[in-house]
Amino acid sequence: MQGIETEWSELEKQVAEEAFKKAYNRETTALIQEISNKASIITEIEEVWQLHDFLSAKRHEIDGKYDFDYSAFIFVFARLLKEKWISLDDLSGLETDKLAKMSALARMS
Amino acid sequence: MQGIETEWSELEKQVAEEAFKKAYNRETTALIQEISNKASIITEIEEVWQLHDFLSAKRHEIDGKYDFDYSAFIFVFARLLKEKWISLDDLSGLETDKLAKMSALARMS
Repeated sequence: MQGIETEWSELEKQVAEEAFKKAYNRETTALIQEISNKASIITEIEEVWQLHDFLSAKRHEIDGKYDFDYSAFIFVFARLLKEKWISLDDLSGLETDKLAKMSALARMS
Repeated sequence: MQGIETEWSELEKQVAEEAFKKAYNRETTALIQEISNKASIITEIEEVWQLHDFLSAKRHEIDGKYDFDYSAFIFVFARLLKEKWISLDDLSGLETDKLAKMSALARMS
């Protein structure tokens, strides 16, 4: 996406990386809890395969979402805002313009 | 494998199917317990992905092993004997010749 790349100051990069790590930690911690809960109530082999399908999808989703790439950060953060893995507070320090874009995208998506 | 197919009497088929179901139930019950135990002690996301890899392998293995097919039953039962999902007692009623082949294969493999 050359030509429409967003500029990130050093401070903004720090804020972004920190918020990204927070979201990753929150989402993976929630996933660990969810897996533990799901596994503890399994009684049929079909439910084991459902858990496997669920993990396949989650792994694909998380691998894709947390691919560190500034050119896609506006979209990634918009998604993380929408999914509530981060709040606008976590992004405090980013330019108002970027925050507005992320919020708008989060609402639209 | 035409030409070397083993003949199965109606009684033998009943014994074989029953033993096959028993092995499947034992193995899948053990797997459910194993998944529940593994999931309950996960603390890191890497362990979630290890659980996913483990499930992928187990699903592939079980899907393949419990494919109901008389032409491969001697080999399947040899494997189930070796893995201790069935015992010779479960196969009581099969021809001595078949049991001997299965036992020999189980020891050799």
